[in-house]
Amino acid sequence: MQIAMIQDKIVPAKELEPVYFDRGIFFGDGVYEVMRSYNGKLFAFEEHLQRFAGSMSAIEITSVDIELIRSRILKAFDAAGFANAKIYFHITRGSDERDRVWKADLKPNFFLTVSELSDNTEEKANGIIVSTHPDWRWKRCDIKSLNLLANVLAANDAERKGCSEAILVDENGMITEGAGSAFFAVRGRTLQTAPLTANILPSITREFAIKAGRNIGLEIVEKSLTPRQAADSDELFIAVTTRDIVPVVKFDDTTIGDGKPGKYTKMIAQEFLSFTA
Amino acid sequence: MQIAMIQDKIVPAKELEPVYFDRGIFFGDGVYEVMRSYNGKLFAFEEHLQRFAGSMSAIEITSVDIELIRSRILKAFDAAGFANAKIYFHITRGSDERDRVWKADLKPNFFLTVSELSDNTEEKANGIIVSTHPDWRWKRCDIKSLNLLANVLAANDAERKGCSEAILVDENGMITEGAGSAFFAVRGRTLQTAPLTANILPSITREFAIKAGRNIGLEIVEKSLTPRQAADSDELFIAVTTRDIVPVVKFDDTTIGDGKPGKYTKMIAQEFLSFTA
Repeated sequence: MQIAMIQDKIVPAKELEPVYFDRGIFFGDGVYEVMRSYNGKLFAFEEHLQRFAGSMSAIEITSVDIELIRSRILKAFDAAGFANAKIYFHITRGSDERDRVWKADLKPNFFLTVSELSDNTEEKANGIIVSTHPDWRWKRCDIKSLNLLANVLAANDAERKGCSEAILVDENGMITEGAGSAFFAVRGRTLQTAPLTANILPSITREFAIKAGRNIGLEIVEKSLTPRQAADSDELFIAVTTRDIVPVVKFDDTTIGDGKPGKYTKMIAQEFLSFTA
Repeated sequence: MQIAMIQDKIVPAKELEPVYFDRGIFFGDGVYEVMRSYNGKLFAFEEHLQRFAGSMSAIEITSVDIELIRSRILKAFDAAGFANAKIYFHITRGSDERDRVWKADLKPNFFLTVSELSDNTEEKANGIIVSTHPDWRWKRCDIKSLNLLANVLAANDAERKGCSEAILVDENGMITEGAGSAFFAVRGRTLQTAPLTANILPSITREFAIKAGRNIGLEIVEKSLTPRQAADSDELFIAVTTRDIVPVVKFDDTTIGDGKPGKYTKMIAQEFLSFTA
């Protein structure tokens, strides 16, 4: 027997929908993806599906066939009919009474939204300002999990400072990545970003940004940067599914280059767009 | 315009209840508490309320008066009528379209359950087995947040090994605490546990266990232990609201003492119970 309370109202727990007992809310016990389309065509669909399968496997959600997820995404994308769609979806281990130890027979909960992407031509043309924040995330950021409070707190700190992304700095003083993006520096003829460790999300946009950098003739260096090195760079940009390549023109109090998007960054953004066609 | 999908079913996003858009599930953007009663009397009620207020403040949920929370808990506890009740509650920042940056006017979501505590006389009499697991949690475990996937994965690893708690070991090889408990060692006439840093929950049961240890004449040492030091200890126990003082008789493959609950642990458990009367 159990009673529950929603805001001020007492209700028998049994009368509540399972969503109230989702392990996603109790523990963040789930994984997610964000993918998008360009002009009616899903970008990097297989890569996102593969990463999602990897995330599920990493947290031992084993009863879900990735082909089922594929068909659901396609069905929802078709139904929405947006040319430039943002598709968010998560799966959680299921709904049950709150207990850290999960029951083997739980039925995972799937949730998806499709919305229309807002245009970000302006931030791509003018660049953005970013600020640094301590990286408080857990130690398995290679898993795209629903445990995102550290990212939320960092993103809001940036917002308060008039910045549109937080760049996370770990306890060793090294930049890991953005609160919701990969982070890149152009230094001379090199394109530098942190290597993929347990504390870096294997970003799909990061992979395409690296490919674009290589295509335009830059040498790729996968090595973490300090904030000082970042501020001293010729160019900076972030890479993220929903915004793709966004130039960074100010890093904390330091203006990058001449305060305008860098030439290589613009070339990489152009090259990146060619992948989406 | 936005569509959503729950399992296989497409629904207009607008038709879904706000709970589906809870930032608690998207980000773990919320904080929680677990408290209990002994024989009809809430234990450490003020301490739990105060910690909850601190957690809300730490993640900048500022619009909720702690007195409102107090009255809701009392109302639900009375309605449930369990002598030995477990009260779980969380508050999240609110429901909205998924965006890391929160809107200032969001209305927080409160959720509470009251259930009857199961008797744990047996584990207290016989002791439990624990196993170690890497501490993958975020770096602000002083905040009692809904980001608990690391705890969940560790707890399930322990369960698989036939253990009833996971003891977390950080990247420096030091024990922080249990996946859902504080961790104590008796070494000679000292009672040792990790100091309260940003990576340790300020456990209320921990405070009372320390008080009990002091009352029975042990010297308190707030210093982290290595797994080897833990295994070499005379006695071990965990401390957690729902189970209070539970002796540990085996640590990974090492039997502690003679494999039975230690004498000081039993004295501490007895002393602890006197606080709850």
